[in-house]
Amino acid sequence: MKESSNLLFDLVLFGGTGDLSMRKLLPALYQLYRTHPFHSSSRIIAVGRTAPSKEAFLHRVQDKLEQHLPEDSWDTVSWQQFAKHLNCISIEADKTESYRGLIPLLSEDRPRVFYFSTHSSLYGAIASSLGALGLITAEARVVLEKPIGRDLDTARQLSGQMSNYFTESQIYRIDHYLGKETVQNLLVLRFANPLFESLWNHHYIDHIQITISETIGVESRGEFYEETGALRDIVQNHLLQLLCILAMEPPPNIEPDRIRDEKLKVLYALQPLLGDGISRYVVRGQYTTGTINGKTCAGYIEEDGVAEHSTIETFVAMKVMIENMRWSGVPFYLRTGKRLPSRSCEIVVHFKEIPHWIFETPRGQLMSNQLVITLQPDESITLRLCGKRLGPGMDVRTVDLNLNPKSRGNKRSADAYERLLLDVIKGDQTLFVRQDELEQAWHWIDPILADWESTSSPPEYYSCGSWGPAGSTLLLAKDGRLWHEGASG
Amino acid sequence: MKESSNLLFDLVLFGGTGDLSMRKLLPALYQLYRTHPFHSSSRIIAVGRTAPSKEAFLHRVQDKLEQHLPEDSWDTVSWQQFAKHLNCISIEADKTESYRGLIPLLSEDRPRVFYFSTHSSLYGAIASSLGALGLITAEARVVLEKPIGRDLDTARQLSGQMSNYFTESQIYRIDHYLGKETVQNLLVLRFANPLFESLWNHHYIDHIQITISETIGVESRGEFYEETGALRDIVQNHLLQLLCILAMEPPPNIEPDRIRDEKLKVLYALQPLLGDGISRYVVRGQYTTGTINGKTCAGYIEEDGVAEHSTIETFVAMKVMIENMRWSGVPFYLRTGKRLPSRSCEIVVHFKEIPHWIFETPRGQLMSNQLVITLQPDESITLRLCGKRLGPGMDVRTVDLNLNPKSRGNKRSADAYERLLLDVIKGDQTLFVRQDELEQAWHWIDPILADWESTSSPPEYYSCGSWGPAGSTLLLAKDGRLWHEGASG
Repeated sequence: MKESSNLLFDLVLFGGTGDLSMRKLLPALYQLYRTHPFHSSSRIIAVGRTAPSKEAFLHRVQDKLEQHLPEDSWDTVSWQQFAKHLNCISIEADKTESYRGLIPLLSEDRPRVFYFSTHSSLYGAIASSLGALGLITAEARVVLEKPIGRDLDTARQLSGQMSNYFTESQIYRIDHYLGKETVQNLLVLRFANPLFESLWNHHYIDHIQITISETIGVESRGEFYEETGALRDIVQNHLLQLLCILAMEPPPNIEPDRIRDEKLKVLYALQPLLGDGISRYVVRGQYTTGTINGKTCAGYIEEDGVAEHSTIETFVAMKVMIENMRWSGVPFYLRTGKRLPSRSCEIVVHFKEIPHWIFETPRGQLMSNQLVITLQPDESITLRLCGKRLGPGMDVRTVDLNLNPKSRGNKRSADAYERLLLDVIKGDQTLFVRQDELEQAWHWIDPILADWESTSSPPEYYSCGSWGPAGSTLLLAKDGRLWHEGASG
Repeated sequence: MKESSNLLFDLVLFGGTGDLSMRKLLPALYQLYRTHPFHSSSRIIAVGRTAPSKEAFLHRVQDKLEQHLPEDSWDTVSWQQFAKHLNCISIEADKTESYRGLIPLLSEDRPRVFYFSTHSSLYGAIASSLGALGLITAEARVVLEKPIGRDLDTARQLSGQMSNYFTESQIYRIDHYLGKETVQNLLVLRFANPLFESLWNHHYIDHIQITISETIGVESRGEFYEETGALRDIVQNHLLQLLCILAMEPPPNIEPDRIRDEKLKVLYALQPLLGDGISRYVVRGQYTTGTINGKTCAGYIEEDGVAEHSTIETFVAMKVMIENMRWSGVPFYLRTGKRLPSRSCEIVVHFKEIPHWIFETPRGQLMSNQLVITLQPDESITLRLCGKRLGPGMDVRTVDLNLNPKSRGNKRSADAYERLLLDVIKGDQTLFVRQDELEQAWHWIDPILADWESTSSPPEYYSCGSWGPAGSTLLLAKDGRLWHEGASG
């Protein structure tokens, strides 16, 4: 490949010595380097409050890469080449002068990416210092990690701060779920196949389930979690974004803003959850001591940094209705929690049952057509159909068809961050969240937050290792439905 | 398995020393024996004009089984057990007295199957002799091989002869294409999956193609073929039966007569091909000298037993419309021929294209959703969808999903005759053709036969090893379509 077609950029990673950088961003950049060679002058600049020496930094990155990369991705030659692009400097976020060290490290002839992977309370200060030193060029882009605000007001404040320095077309609000191969494949499946496009509405779809489950608790992040909770941490961003991708109308084309327009329309159409609706359709849970895989785990209130009588939710299940022509009457059941029996992210589209069953094989719930989209732990898409059991008679059994891209050839599927970092460098905002989407999501979430903050009733408790409180099962049982066995098994 | 649950029957095979018996029926019975053990007193009685000795007969059957069975199906122990059920006697079809030899070989306590695998001109005489000797018990069944008649009149005459001795519920008109696992699976796919059932109509299906192609010519059967031709040999039965299975309305249940009622309704709804319509929508071809797989093949008129100026068709392609609410405007293209480049039987359901294409990947004809059902040489069902090509961007590529029952486990798929013989013994008429279906098929075919018999124009000629005359390609080209690449490749 000619040098001129190699990726030319400068990337400044605030929080560059932190956990997300080490576990996700630097491994993703290394993988990106191997598939899309960098221009020899491209730079990755890790910024920390107290940066280690370059040698110590490189040593630490190497350790983390070896630890977090798949075995067949690591090779020493690539690492040595990649390491030439790495730099490390120390900046104090609120001291503009300390940013001067960046100046000699940046060039004018290329996209300049500022990646904010710090606490969001620092976003304003960082932007203002970059602006003051004239570092925000026309080709500059800023990547913001969630949580962006903690409610509509704070999100708007942050937006105001950012918009003093960046235009909307320069701001990349990252939701790494959107970077997953399978989420993008879902767009192709929906809009390139008449077989799905024709059926993707209330006439043919019975309901949709989305589950994001974790086995871990709050780990060392008790203080952070006390301010956040599952609704802010997962529902407001990941679950609502997946809901938007599933439910959006077909856009006229795949330009970034045409797709984001359609996602926004879904958020506008969400039935508000207010007053009685909150207690009826939203389940709020908190884990107590229990066992996962034979290991005893402490309850939430016993975790470090958690208040003794904390009512913060570690589990949310909700029934969401979309009030538009396409989805009227079709429930979307969302669920997320910590300390659940398995780590998974799974979307299940349940098609309506065939109106009349003519076969002798009993028709169970299993016999309905389903599209099962798994994002975690491994990505896959499975279409469940009915076929004839081989042999005499007309016995019906289910057939699971695997649309998993990984199983069709040996090509490695890019990590979500790797894909999204490439998009930032290339300037493609399709898979990033626009300000109006962010605000509308908070607008819908805020009443639930307010209700929970004002109530004296505790969350429903559930044991570590269970699938959440009884209320979650009941939420679907009231509608004659069950959570999908895959995630619940 | 208890002896009492073993298959108890007497089966009399007229034409039992002939080609079909040796190549298909006796191998199918042997396979049936291995999967469904026979009661020790069950009998298979092969009837020939001049039967060989039992030893010579068994020797010949063994030879043929070893030749026609898949290697892993043959085993000497099974053969020795199976051979105990075999008998062979000599009967002259038109001499009632010669049937007396059957009497001591038949028992009253079981289904009695008479399988007519002779020229259909003998069917009447055989039935009459069986009747005269009182051999047609209440539990007797008769299996009729195609061709049943050579037009509506002769089919009705034959029906009259048979109905003197057998009720309709005793008559099994066999069309071995209906015995194929995949054809039955098609019923399950259509009627158990809302994903297909909802789309199975003119709103979503663009057109359907059915091809039955052979590489062989008329072989030693020139005289038979001169009386028959492709329209009688393949279109009137196999192609119209497959069309019925594809196009039928959902039956209220899967009782044999409810399915056959629905197939009949399709035949009633076929747009008649009359007058100009015949030359416009039906292509009649005859093969001339050419090459298949590097081997030179003689033209039809050079074959033994064929008249010098014969206009008999060895190829038919036709565009058929079904005039009902479901199929109005959806062409069914049927095609069959001898001396074509490959042996195959393939159904391709072309769904309509997605109304609006939002992706940058060019949309070709390949990008439309297709269900490809292959019955020969190997059975399979493939669903062609569009998915995302792995990697950055939103490139669309096709994904072929295999619904082939064989590929899902190692269980052997029963041969069509094996399945159908079991159904006859069990008394299940679902997969057999009813008299009214047979007559309605002839009713629709007769005007085309009459037109061809009255015309002085020759068929269109095509070289051996081509996909038929130019008119066949043109038939679809006029509608802006192509025959499916699989069969045409």
